[in-house]
Amino acid sequence: MRHLAILAAASVLGACTPTAGEVPEAAPGHAPWRPAPVEDAAEPSEVVARSTAADWRQIEPDNLLILELADGAQVFIELAPDFAPVHVANIRAFARGGWWNGAAIYRVQDNYVAQWGNGDARASLPTGVVRTPPAEYHRALAGLPVRPLGFPDSYAPVVGHAGGWPVAWDPDSGRAWLTHCYGSVGVGREVAPDTGTGGELYAVIGHAPRHLDRNIATVGRVIEGIAALSARPRGTGDLGFYDEAKGERPVPIRSTRLASDLPEAERPRFEAMRTDTEAFSAYVTGRANRGGTFFDVPAGGVDLCNVNVPVRRRP
Amino acid sequence: MRHLAILAAASVLGACTPTAGEVPEAAPGHAPWRPAPVEDAAEPSEVVARSTAADWRQIEPDNLLILELADGAQVFIELAPDFAPVHVANIRAFARGGWWNGAAIYRVQDNYVAQWGNGDARASLPTGVVRTPPAEYHRALAGLPVRPLGFPDSYAPVVGHAGGWPVAWDPDSGRAWLTHCYGSVGVGREVAPDTGTGGELYAVIGHAPRHLDRNIATVGRVIEGIAALSARPRGTGDLGFYDEAKGERPVPIRSTRLASDLPEAERPRFEAMRTDTEAFSAYVTGRANRGGTFFDVPAGGVDLCNVNVPVRRRP
Repeated sequence: MRHLAILAAASVLGACTPTAGEVPEAAPGHAPWRPAPVEDAAEPSEVVARSTAADWRQIEPDNLLILELADGAQVFIELAPDFAPVHVANIRAFARGGWWNGAAIYRVQDNYVAQWGNGDARASLPTGVVRTPPAEYHRALAGLPVRPLGFPDSYAPVVGHAGGWPVAWDPDSGRAWLTHCYGSVGVGREVAPDTGTGGELYAVIGHAPRHLDRNIATVGRVIEGIAALSARPRGTGDLGFYDEAKGERPVPIRSTRLASDLPEAERPRFEAMRTDTEAFSAYVTGRANRGGTFFDVPAGGVDLCNVNVPVRRRP
Repeated sequence: MRHLAILAAASVLGACTPTAGEVPEAAPGHAPWRPAPVEDAAEPSEVVARSTAADWRQIEPDNLLILELADGAQVFIELAPDFAPVHVANIRAFARGGWWNGAAIYRVQDNYVAQWGNGDARASLPTGVVRTPPAEYHRALAGLPVRPLGFPDSYAPVVGHAGGWPVAWDPDSGRAWLTHCYGSVGVGREVAPDTGTGGELYAVIGHAPRHLDRNIATVGRVIEGIAALSARPRGTGDLGFYDEAKGERPVPIRSTRLASDLPEAERPRFEAMRTDTEAFSAYVTGRANRGGTFFDVPAGGVDLCNVNVPVRRRP
């Protein structure tokens, strides 16, 4: 069964022992950064309420994947062809070929991922599916309309948003990549250099596992309905796989369709906040400086995965 | 009903609009930081396997709170008296006074918190409970055996660990505080300057809501059994409260006891990895540099809340 194997490495590293009681001035290896809190920043929900139509972009029907579970619950996923074009094309071909009809959610690991697919049933892939896609783990920074977040990150030289997506980048290498945040969707795979076809997918349901960035094809994010994945019982097998010997039952998936394959009148319609607007900058500032009557101290900073790009149904 | 009110603020901030396609050198306001990945770092699980008895500390029975739900599921919480002594003393008094026997989990908000308590039943507090505790939202940095993480943080000048806890600190103000990570337990409260008594508690079940740091009393963390909180159906009321009008039922809590109030033979026994040891430094390096056959690219960095301090049952 394809899974995110978490496997062991080889050797031991030098370690340092700080003296108990010592009060260091700053963490080593990087310049200290002082948050500059903003008093009376607009509340994020206010920014959304005040935004205009030009602050939003439609989510394209060809990038909107709809998972329907056997109990009727729906999970809506926006695909990211600008970051993983071959894997996204595969996912469209899998959806159109009926690959996931009758598949199941077979892994729910607490504070990590929920994963679904067909498991070992890989005999005949639908027409158009590339069996060994390239390692779409990063892309060229050039050409991406990046907006730096403005706050330090624990994993990458720079993070921010591009085209509505949370991204990290390295100006020196000229590479950019989608980051793993809550709700991010990636492609399950075996060990390197296998990249997975896209037939087995997972969604992040815990604290952002950013160590997966650049190690796996990130292909989209859940924009509505994630509770149908996150509120499931956890699997008690290794890595959160459901242990059928213990009576844990995978959750059947009735269908997985692209909105573009539905009759136009039946298509769900979403829009997401653009990330290259003044409204989005105000939104980020609001997320970094929560205020109002509840908060005493605005943080003056925010991490990338706590800036959830607003998404809403279109009227 | 006491809850984490998320309320609106007043005014609008200046926003900047980067030019689409522009490639900034670094995020503004802080020096760029370049991760320095470590190849062949020890896998965190290996570090734990190799550790010795001296690398662990016992979790004190007086700091171990045991929630038992009506279905028998148990949630184990370590309390943090070094950070919120009055609130922790209250929590002990609430437990000894039977406050939560017959209480309920009444709020489960996706990617945020699960919250439990007695709601409005605040008429008579158990003996020893302080009705208006001080704002234990931070403490003196001096005297804390801090170990800097070694990587930048998006919220604070410095983060790391102290006495087994994830903390942030500001060398200039001389303050330190517990951070909100997955599993952190805090005290529900009304709007400022109310701090809550400790009678209503929440646990983080999503991406670390670090904006709550210094705005609420953080009193502990779940060390085992969090799935009994995180895998629950989400409430569909505002802020994830269960909407009883829609048939959503709060989850009854049978009892909440301190391990120190159990007969010694019946006490669950846990130990946590010390955070002032070479083993813990190797563990952090391993978390920041995942390797083995699965990972192609070690991150070279890790955020505080992805360094889960290992906890295990004692033999």
